[in-house]
Amino acid sequence: MLAYEFLGAKIGAGKTMVLDKGFGLNAAADLVATAGATIDFIKLGWGTAATMDRDLIKQKVALYRQANIVVYPGGTLLEVAEASGQYAAFLQETQALGFNGVEISDGSTVITPARRQALIEQAKTAGLFVLTEVGKKNPTLDHELTVTQRLAEIQADLAAGANYVILEAREAGKNIGIYDATGAIIESELDALAKAGSDQLIFEAPLKPQQVALILKFGPQVNLGNIAAAEATAVETLRRGLRGDTVGKIQ
Amino acid sequence: MLAYEFLGAKIGAGKTMVLDKGFGLNAAADLVATAGATIDFIKLGWGTAATMDRDLIKQKVALYRQANIVVYPGGTLLEVAEASGQYAAFLQETQALGFNGVEISDGSTVITPARRQALIEQAKTAGLFVLTEVGKKNPTLDHELTVTQRLAEIQADLAAGANYVILEAREAGKNIGIYDATGAIIESELDALAKAGSDQLIFEAPLKPQQVALILKFGPQVNLGNIAAAEATAVETLRRGLRGDTVGKIQ
Amino acid sequence: MLAYEFLGAKIGAGKTMVLDKGFGLNAAADLVATAGATIDFIKLGWGTAATMDRDLIKQKVALYRQANIVVYPGGTLLEVAEASGQYAAFLQETQALGFNGVEISDGSTVITPARRQALIEQAKTAGLFVLTEVGKKNPTLDHELTVTQRLAEIQADLAAGANYVILEAREAGKNIGIYDATGAIIESELDALAKAGSDQLIFEAPLKPQQVALILKFGPQVNLGNIAAAEATAVETLRRGLRGDTVGKIQ
Repeated sequence: MLAYEFLGAKIGAGKTMVLDKGFGLNAAADLVATAGATIDFIKLGWGTAATMDRDLIKQKVALYRQANIVVYPGGTLLEVAEASGQYAAFLQETQALGFNGVEISDGSTVITPARRQALIEQAKTAGLFVLTEVGKKNPTLDHELTVTQRLAEIQADLAAGANYVILEAREAGKNIGIYDATGAIIESELDALAKAGSDQLIFEAPLKPQQVALILKFGPQVNLGNIAAAEATAVETLRRGLRGDTVGKIQ
Repeated sequence: MLAYEFLGAKIGAGKTMVLDKGFGLNAAADLVATAGATIDFIKLGWGTAATMDRDLIKQKVALYRQANIVVYPGGTLLEVAEASGQYAAFLQETQALGFNGVEISDGSTVITPARRQALIEQAKTAGLFVLTEVGKKNPTLDHELTVTQRLAEIQADLAAGANYVILEAREAGKNIGIYDATGAIIESELDALAKAGSDQLIFEAPLKPQQVALILKFGPQVNLGNIAAAEATAVETLRRGLRGDTVGKIQ
Repeated sequence: MLAYEFLGAKIGAGKTMVLDKGFGLNAAADLVATAGATIDFIKLGWGTAATMDRDLIKQKVALYRQANIVVYPGGTLLEVAEASGQYAAFLQETQALGFNGVEISDGSTVITPARRQALIEQAKTAGLFVLTEVGKKNPTLDHELTVTQRLAEIQADLAAGANYVILEAREAGKNIGIYDATGAIIESELDALAKAGSDQLIFEAPLKPQQVALILKFGPQVNLGNIAAAEATAVETLRRGLRGDTVGKIQ
């Protein structure tokens, strides 16, 4: 039973994807106990999983999965494996470690549309939950992507079987995707992308003003990603109108 | 016994109010063990308490109180309850969860002076430690508040029985209250407010340069609030002249 | 055995010095379990060690040392002790608490070259690992130091027996040492200092763009310091080409 339940608590509007960039088991247990019910996906950011002992990763993944969270290694790790011709080994190790999802991206490397489709299909066939990511980590390359190209990629990914498509914003959230150099939303870009429908889109929104703006624009059911682990509870309060920025503004 | 005690340790000059924005029990235990002796108040920020299980909140509050810390839910939660006509239920649940303080604010809503006085008196009657907060969370609304109005509110709150009055700066500490858009202190504003006497004033000072400036201006006994939990020990070193910024400058 | 070992894991290129600014035992245990194998030095920042109970410091130092990490109190604490004529007592307490290193600096106080040499020699004689630090914590004073003076100090420290010399950048990494007011590297300054040879130099690099730039310039074997504890794993992924910024760019 939630504290202050008489205020009309309603947990879980909108998907929340949290970034774990190297938590140990004490911090992971705290995250699950405090915010586990509000978190849908946890990403072990970029290649962090590959710097740690297998047993530790297994324990952490199990801990998150007990809270019914989809857990997956960062897309960068998949890209590094794919670039060295080891995608099959990557999928095998990912499942051996207990992950139940993968992220398929080409943020740091080049992957053809046909190969991207094959990666999605192989992961789905292996029984994994598939999130794909659209966008480049290098701002110059990212700016070359047109809205039309991004929309086409979103649609192709979903057609190939992806469960969700993530719009890249990195950990910093500036000068990339729908955000300008200050981290503010470029409304025209956002509006054009949102035409794809937002149910299966996850907006990476690491900065609080981004979270506030997206919740006020689309409602608490908007899907948000790359939320810093320490901010998971704060995001839930924004969704529920329990922080100054959204008090009285949530239906 | 403190480490390096021969250096003349003196713990506890000035009140320190720390912001907990969603800690689990492992992190809370660390906070108490490392900095509990230097912390006077812990606020479970804005509405975060209402997103968690009652038992978890009870355990965390108990853990903090064992360290003789006054613990209270954020003023925003009180405002949400009051706005829906549930102040009595709010006080009851607050005490049932083990909190021994409340924060009475109107940062996100409108509360008349008479009603504010009634809220303070009811909380005091219920046996709670009362901190009030002066300032608006929306910068535009906050800028409309004159120093004279702020001073009047401080005095009215103390007259109504508030134990301390907090000067709002939010978690970010910029473009609000005594801080300009860069987070620097507006000296004229600060000086005017400090005329009220600073013993019962708590300056929210989330940014390190703000903490340094206030300690150098008023001495280590200045009361500081909205200190990030991870910075509690750092603030104590500033008060004691054990960090570069204040070495040799503390009496 | 590391997760995803088939990707060719290679741990430990370059020394990494991590800043602990007040961790409790739960967080310290997480740090060791997740990143202990990649960390060479942990500094209990500035005077934080002197605000805590002796037993707690002893336990934390022991925990880090079990992971073969050199642990030392911040240079500021040594400076405060030295300024009050208590260097011998400082060394004694440092060793009694279990630390196996010290940092000798003059970032906040003035110490003559002769006295600095004596401090280094006494610490070495006591059996401690010695890191010295070059630079001033006050930006105005720091800017007065010429490259020639910094180089001379580096060479004198090494000649006196220092194991490593740290280039000061503080926790914030801006407007100090080799960094300009935005935190960007001043290449001419860096190049001049690097002529001293970088094997025994540790560059404080608290900001991610600094870490990326130094790794891309000198390779993963560059020594990096003042890494926030929460970023230790992220730095290791940069060294190994497992984060977007360095994917495909590490030999």
